[in-house]
Amino acid sequence: MTVEEMQRLVREGVPLAGAWGVEVLSFAQGEAVLRLPHHEDLLRPGGTVSGPALMGLADVAMWVALLSLTGGRDESLTASLSITFLRAPAPRAVIAEARVIKKGRTLSYGEVTLRAEGEDAPCAHVTTSWATNAKRA
Amino acid sequence: MTVEEMQRLVREGVPLAGAWGVEVLSFAQGEAVLRLPHHEDLLRPGGTVSGPALMGLADVAMWVALLSLTGGRDESLTASLSITFLRAPAPRAVIAEARVIKKGRTLSYGEVTLRAEGEDAPCAHVTTSWATNAKRA
Amino acid sequence: MTVEEMQRLVREGVPLAGAWGVEVLSFAQGEAVLRLPHHEDLLRPGGTVSGPALMGLADVAMWVALLSLTGGRDESLTASLSITFLRAPAPRAVIAEARVIKKGRTLSYGEVTLRAEGEDAPCAHVTTSWATNAKRA
Amino acid sequence: MTVEEMQRLVREGVPLAGAWGVEVLSFAQGEAVLRLPHHEDLLRPGGTVSGPALMGLADVAMWVALLSLTGGRDESLTASLSITFLRAPAPRAVIAEARVIKKGRTLSYGEVTLRAEGEDAPCAHVTTSWATNAKRA
Repeated sequence: MTVEEMQRLVREGVPLAGAWGVEVLSFAQGEAVLRLPHHEDLLRPGGTVSGPALMGLADVAMWVALLSLTGGRDESLTASLSITFLRAPAPRAVIAEARVIKKGRTLSYGEVTLRAEGEDAPCAHVTTSWATNAKRA
Repeated sequence: MTVEEMQRLVREGVPLAGAWGVEVLSFAQGEAVLRLPHHEDLLRPGGTVSGPALMGLADVAMWVALLSLTGGRDESLTASLSITFLRAPAPRAVIAEARVIKKGRTLSYGEVTLRAEGEDAPCAHVTTSWATNAKRA
Repeated sequence: MTVEEMQRLVREGVPLAGAWGVEVLSFAQGEAVLRLPHHEDLLRPGGTVSGPALMGLADVAMWVALLSLTGGRDESLTASLSITFLRAPAPRAVIAEARVIKKGRTLSYGEVTLRAEGEDAPCAHVTTSWATNAKRA
Repeated sequence: MTVEEMQRLVREGVPLAGAWGVEVLSFAQGEAVLRLPHHEDLLRPGGTVSGPALMGLADVAMWVALLSLTGGRDESLTASLSITFLRAPAPRAVIAEARVIKKGRTLSYGEVTLRAEGEDAPCAHVTTSWATNAKRA
């Protein structure tokens, strides 16, 4: 599966990701790097990227990391997601690095680190659980 | 402050809330009820309302609950948000009920219950911390 | 099942709860109220009840709330637990009120509010997911 | 500050850590490794290490990681802690690796990975926020 195919899968599967122009930069072995381009309408008061945009980006980044382990078969749903905002991101593109910590039979778990493009310090950190091979309980 | 004024504040302050047509139904004393109308582009595979849309709705619902305590003065930022998905919401409007549990000098905390319109059982539950009167640390 | 039987089940099942003398005050229909007596060795610097003691109390309180739905059959394991500390509890007994929000086939979810005995304002709030009828994934 | 001095500080500051015999193995630059020896009374039904014991261990591990940045001055309190259980730990000692992700003026944030001694796969993952230089809000 190519990066282009994965990006198409994500944009078709999650229309918000399509509307925001989310890019898949790379993925392999339970890891994925995605990019959210800068959009004026994703800002919040103060000129920083809004929380919902960062949460949405993190959610699809973990989805790609999980898809990288199943050859693109979509067999999971977000069960929970926790985000902590660490510093206001500059009003520019945001990079998300997702990593699967546990791929389980029924539950998987991972973390996503978000950074304003070009910065070392993360602007937010996410942990998230996914129900695998199953309808939501 | 009227419901119409609060709704205008929310839609101008958070462009995503404006784009989604989020409605403020009521607010008072640290509580708020908001409504996310049904949109095809907020769905995810399987036809249910996407996680990012629910997270965004919960985030602005808590913002309104906090604004209800300060007469609409915007002095807080989301510090963290945790959502647990409890059942797939039907593809229709979503109602968010937010409640401030603690209004602190530097940190506030509350919960948001999300339901598909007309249903009793919640589709998701959110807890969230807000930094008050302060830039993000 | 009586309150005494439930308390015995909890103290035998979780030796820490036994060592701390955790008391079951009441339980019914997915709700439970427990009490952690005051112990000098559960304090932390500053003289307040330590976080681990509050987390442990919350964990067994949700266990009792779940057991109230199954007549005491133990068929769940904590899958995740999130605690937010709202104010330093006075150095006295702590009351935990647990409530099941969702009892699912494979995952259950609830919240626990913790208060120093005799106080209205909560000192901590907990949400927690439990894997039901299953080994940890 | 030596490992022995840090361990003494932790055991005196958190009596539970003392009672459990928690060991400080190393610490430096916002990171710390701690060890919880095996105790029969820290088990839960099924013979695995209980959740409260893992939460308590993670909490003191992050405390040591933060103390490593301030030369042992205690100026923080846990604001929130979230643990996800990934697999049942074998009934043996548990190793906690803590890492500060953000050291802020008023809030710090980090993660802790827990493993049964000798195993690669983590048994639990923790994220936690600490209020710095401040009373709880």
